[in-house]
Amino acid sequence: MVTADGHGEPGTPRVRQTAMRTHRCGDLRLADAGETVTVCGWVAHRRQHGQSLQFLDLRDYSGVVQCVVDGTVDVRSEYVLKITGTVTERPEGTVNPQLATGQVELRDCKVDVLSVAKPPPFPLDDRADNVDESTRLAYRYLDLRRERMQRNLRVRSAALSAIRTALAPLGFAEVETPLLMPSTPEGAREFIVPSRQFPGSFYALPQSPQLFKQLLMVGGMDRYFQFARCLRDEDLRADRQYEFTQLDLEMSFVDQQDVLDVVTSAVLAATEAAVDVPVPPVVTMTWHEAMDRYGVDKPDLRFGMELVELTSVFAGSGFKAFAGAGAVKGVRVPGGSATHNRKALDTLTDTAKKLGAKGLVWMRVGAGGTLESPVAKFLSPEELAGIVTRTEAAEGDLLLLVADEWMTACEVLGQLRNQLGRPPAGEGGFRYVWVVDFPLFVGIDQATGRPKPGHHPFTRPHPDDVDKMESDPLEVRSRAYDLVLNGWELGSGSIRIHEPDLQQRIFGLLGITPEEANARFGFFLTPFGYGAPPHGGFAFGIDRLVAILAGEDNIREVIAFPKTQSGLDPMTGAPTQVDERQLRELGVRVVAAPPA
Amino acid sequence: MVTADGHGEPGTPRVRQTAMRTHRCGDLRLADAGETVTVCGWVAHRRQHGQSLQFLDLRDYSGVVQCVVDGTVDVRSEYVLKITGTVTERPEGTVNPQLATGQVELRDCKVDVLSVAKPPPFPLDDRADNVDESTRLAYRYLDLRRERMQRNLRVRSAALSAIRTALAPLGFAEVETPLLMPSTPEGAREFIVPSRQFPGSFYALPQSPQLFKQLLMVGGMDRYFQFARCLRDEDLRADRQYEFTQLDLEMSFVDQQDVLDVVTSAVLAATEAAVDVPVPPVVTMTWHEAMDRYGVDKPDLRFGMELVELTSVFAGSGFKAFAGAGAVKGVRVPGGSATHNRKALDTLTDTAKKLGAKGLVWMRVGAGGTLESPVAKFLSPEELAGIVTRTEAAEGDLLLLVADEWMTACEVLGQLRNQLGRPPAGEGGFRYVWVVDFPLFVGIDQATGRPKPGHHPFTRPHPDDVDKMESDPLEVRSRAYDLVLNGWELGSGSIRIHEPDLQQRIFGLLGITPEEANARFGFFLTPFGYGAPPHGGFAFGIDRLVAILAGEDNIREVIAFPKTQSGLDPMTGAPTQVDERQLRELGVRVVAAPPA
Repeated sequence: MVTADGHGEPGTPRVRQTAMRTHRCGDLRLADAGETVTVCGWVAHRRQHGQSLQFLDLRDYSGVVQCVVDGTVDVRSEYVLKITGTVTERPEGTVNPQLATGQVELRDCKVDVLSVAKPPPFPLDDRADNVDESTRLAYRYLDLRRERMQRNLRVRSAALSAIRTALAPLGFAEVETPLLMPSTPEGAREFIVPSRQFPGSFYALPQSPQLFKQLLMVGGMDRYFQFARCLRDEDLRADRQYEFTQLDLEMSFVDQQDVLDVVTSAVLAATEAAVDVPVPPVVTMTWHEAMDRYGVDKPDLRFGMELVELTSVFAGSGFKAFAGAGAVKGVRVPGGSATHNRKALDTLTDTAKKLGAKGLVWMRVGAGGTLESPVAKFLSPEELAGIVTRTEAAEGDLLLLVADEWMTACEVLGQLRNQLGRPPAGEGGFRYVWVVDFPLFVGIDQATGRPKPGHHPFTRPHPDDVDKMESDPLEVRSRAYDLVLNGWELGSGSIRIHEPDLQQRIFGLLGITPEEANARFGFFLTPFGYGAPPHGGFAFGIDRLVAILAGEDNIREVIAFPKTQSGLDPMTGAPTQVDERQLRELGVRVVAAPPA
Repeated sequence: MVTADGHGEPGTPRVRQTAMRTHRCGDLRLADAGETVTVCGWVAHRRQHGQSLQFLDLRDYSGVVQCVVDGTVDVRSEYVLKITGTVTERPEGTVNPQLATGQVELRDCKVDVLSVAKPPPFPLDDRADNVDESTRLAYRYLDLRRERMQRNLRVRSAALSAIRTALAPLGFAEVETPLLMPSTPEGAREFIVPSRQFPGSFYALPQSPQLFKQLLMVGGMDRYFQFARCLRDEDLRADRQYEFTQLDLEMSFVDQQDVLDVVTSAVLAATEAAVDVPVPPVVTMTWHEAMDRYGVDKPDLRFGMELVELTSVFAGSGFKAFAGAGAVKGVRVPGGSATHNRKALDTLTDTAKKLGAKGLVWMRVGAGGTLESPVAKFLSPEELAGIVTRTEAAEGDLLLLVADEWMTACEVLGQLRNQLGRPPAGEGGFRYVWVVDFPLFVGIDQATGRPKPGHHPFTRPHPDDVDKMESDPLEVRSRAYDLVLNGWELGSGSIRIHEPDLQQRIFGLLGITPEEANARFGFFLTPFGYGAPPHGGFAFGIDRLVAILAGEDNIREVIAFPKTQSGLDPMTGAPTQVDERQLRELGVRVVAAPPA
């Protein structure tokens, strides 16, 4: 609830009091009436009342308080003031119930101007939401004064703090792993840093601390965590930044459930610290169930519209498109009949085809469970009745059916379900899901005939499936798991392979020779030869978690100083050119480069 | 004490228990006798008893437990085992009082080998302290298994956690500032990062978050902290690494004492979490007092030997070297007479001269306060008696006197005091000192006639001295302060200048034109024009703090994965060469470079 810092509640003396102030602006209440107090802050609003009086709203991060000051004091918006005055009950009819301090105002004010201020380039309230983002970022130090940004950064801080507090009593050691790492041939899109000591050589910035956290387990640290600063030089999207923060943890002598339990308590603690609604228990489902019921491996449980299994309805159907399909699945869109005209249905069909389906069958549900559909005439009354029963369809609903391979049918309908039903950010509460038992392999490489790994090749196979690795690789489940919140994958983890012989078996399956394995993964394999404990871990993105908790769509809104989508910082101008001499020392030279 | 994680005390179920174990090795006590338990860990020692029995010491981070196992089980040092057995009181005469688990052993053991292990390249106990450091770093994942490294990293984690817990209820928001920053012409020795999006342009890695933390204050964050990862590309010394972590904080609407109070509570919390001795209250002294009494601006209060003021003793002396000096100061070395022969005294004299003194006068204190010294014959009986009285000298002591400018006399004797009296790391307790009222300027630049700033030019002058800035700049004190622990400067901070006009006045004194100021510091000055609050802050190095708390001389001992003094990581081989294609994308080329 972000009240630890006093938001919404008056602060304790240690929070509010300094050499310059007795209270923060947001602290004052009717109970303080009669007290002489000193507050400091920025002029949020100013209203002149004739010659003799001004009403100033003084703002700090805790809130706003109204001060009635001498009309001759020359102050303007965003001036920084120190005001000493008497807390006074507001006259009847001027109470502002929207404001925590709305029952009082400061009277008999002495005003010190601490700093003058130029007028800000945009209004520092909700109207700034419509200002061009690069302008907001160029003046981020002003944008941050807004209630929205203050709240978002405090939510972030409260979430970090709650996670730490949850982990501290569980035996975790916080360990900082290096920022200057080796460059890895595996790691595309890493940032590199030229070395001055060894000109022509480079460090790389971490895309994740995966190497080091597993080595900490080999080193006997037992339980490690870190809020790891990671960097990835990839093309930026709305939900990506070059830099990101992840909660990174690893545990020894554990099985999957141990890791899930720890991460669950951490995220629930973060959520409870940040938001004011009850959080339902975290659900666990297998990857297969997630695909089967939601058509995605990151199901959004804030809404229903689950995929319905219809294959058996058409087992002996005369309609070959259904009878011959690997699976027939459907989604019911409540009340969707009226909201989808033919054009909208055509668009949905196009979408389904783009997603890989051979087609999309729609059905409008009429009175008494009648179905209007281009394919209705090919289906028997029993089949039509079966559809209605299974989907629990009611008049006015829209049904969407796909007959295809099971995977395709699930994926296509999962996308349509999200597109048609997903609530916006900030609505529908907070629904966490663990998705477990991901497939170890995600298909067969046509060129090599080898299975393709679903995760990194150190992911542990499910113990019940190890015997099937060679005979039936696509049926092998893994000890990999994802944590999903409101349809976003927050992060993923796995139990790792700690035995060199099992690791070799996986490499063999993937067609990686021992020599190649050594060249690519030697920094893991050598240490593991000295006695690695069974271990597993997890990493999840703090930026996305906080964005969801703060009800923001864009992670830039929960980062103090983000880059633009082209990687620029409009405030500082980074990146910039650097000194020739500096480059010479590093043994590098800028060569003619295409403009971006 | 680092007991939060269960070191030394049995852990709670949530700390010790996982799917694979019921207890940690170090948890077991006599009270557990009769219980069947499962522990996991590494074989620390193995002793064969005939054909039928082996005594295994199984180790995890919490400690060691002795397990009596079947002699035919093939295990060796550093194998990873899971052992299920019955906690049994050790037979009389075999109790080990050195060990927390020394009253018990596991009997009727079932042993699972979780991982085999090659013999480690060095013994994983205290003997490794004598192993070449680059070997220890090359196998850091084994070095970390040692009790010393486990303890150091747990001390570090406990200190970080205690600092956060101390700051959390004080209204601080933890904010992460960018790692990809603008390059600054001011910042020598910054690491740079080529941009792929803008080939030929570079980001810089932060040497400190100073810019951003002050902008957070302009942005109304009120109180900010961060454990900031910082990087500086400077020549490495025993106490430096390219990467370091600092506790970085900043507060608005405060004066100096507010910042000192917060940092004091944070470091005391860290100290109490990490060590098991009482910590005396933190002392505050002015820079002038520190120089006058200890001859350094980072006094080590773990020992006495304070500098004694002797100037007035020689006010009318016939000994011109003393009478004509700006100051005469002395240090008493208790019992130092016997431990310093003529050769040792000559060496001290050489040291004093190298430090800038014209000379060093030594005096041996004999029976009844007689002084033996080359200059004794030039001094009157009253002067000799005055020396003895002022220094409180006793028979067998050695006195060292310097007559020079006050500053030189202080500095030279301060160095000698440290050299002769300073206790080694880990001894003498923990003595924190705030040094305040540093001079704003540290001298006059001979070339320009301008005063030279003692800190960055945004440091606030002492309010009582602002009027002297132009007339008597060297007498102007600043609102800069250092925190010193056992003679190490942990960190420094200041109250900042927040008013553009005062800032211009400082720039004027330093001979910085408005244009130049804008070019060099525009990223500060522009934001400050929009209304900056009075603010101040602090930053201190976690690595050094933890090293002192852990009793280590070298910060590499408290860093999980440090670089060597040449900046190499012998474990991963970083830095390395990178792919030509990668460089081409970045618009840079490696040019022929001299070998390092």
